[in-house]
Amino acid sequence: MAKFMDVHHGMAGITEDQLRMAHQADLAIQSDENVQFEHAWADPDAGVVYCLSEAPSKEAVRRVHERAGHPADEVHPVPLSV
Amino acid sequence: MAKFMDVHHGMAGITEDQLRMAHQADLAIQSDENVQFEHAWADPDAGVVYCLSEAPSKEAVRRVHERAGHPADEVHPVPLSV
Repeated sequence: MAKFMDVHHGMAGITEDQLRMAHQADLAIQSDENVQFEHAWADPDAGVVYCLSEAPSKEAVRRVHERAGHPADEVHPVPLSV
Repeated sequence: MAKFMDVHHGMAGITEDQLRMAHQADLAIQSDENVQFEHAWADPDAGVVYCLSEAPSKEAVRRVHERAGHPADEVHPVPLSV
């Protein structure tokens, strides 16, 4: 398992409810891919959402987000953290 | 106080030690601006670093990172989180 930060663009105007529902959609299926989404942060003005997860691979993160209806624009392994 | 996610590009090859030292440099001066850096995550291959903070403003985050020697390329207020 490794840590990943993924990024969604084009989310301008996202609301608290929409962020929570999107996160819930990930949580509902993440076990199929052995992914754990931990946090998500949104900038509704710039339309950017960052998601932090633990996952077996970048592809696993991508598949969960795609199946949940909000594919990620970038998925970065982040092996270093403080 | 609000939450911010800032992003540094061009950090390819960053090591665990370098990330820790950069974070320590922020922590050493952050109180001057009433900023609290909470976490940082690095993708050494893509050269991207994400930093999460609590701060009074985007400008305060920018000033701490600049004075610490590693200006941020983007600073996003992230008022929504899950």
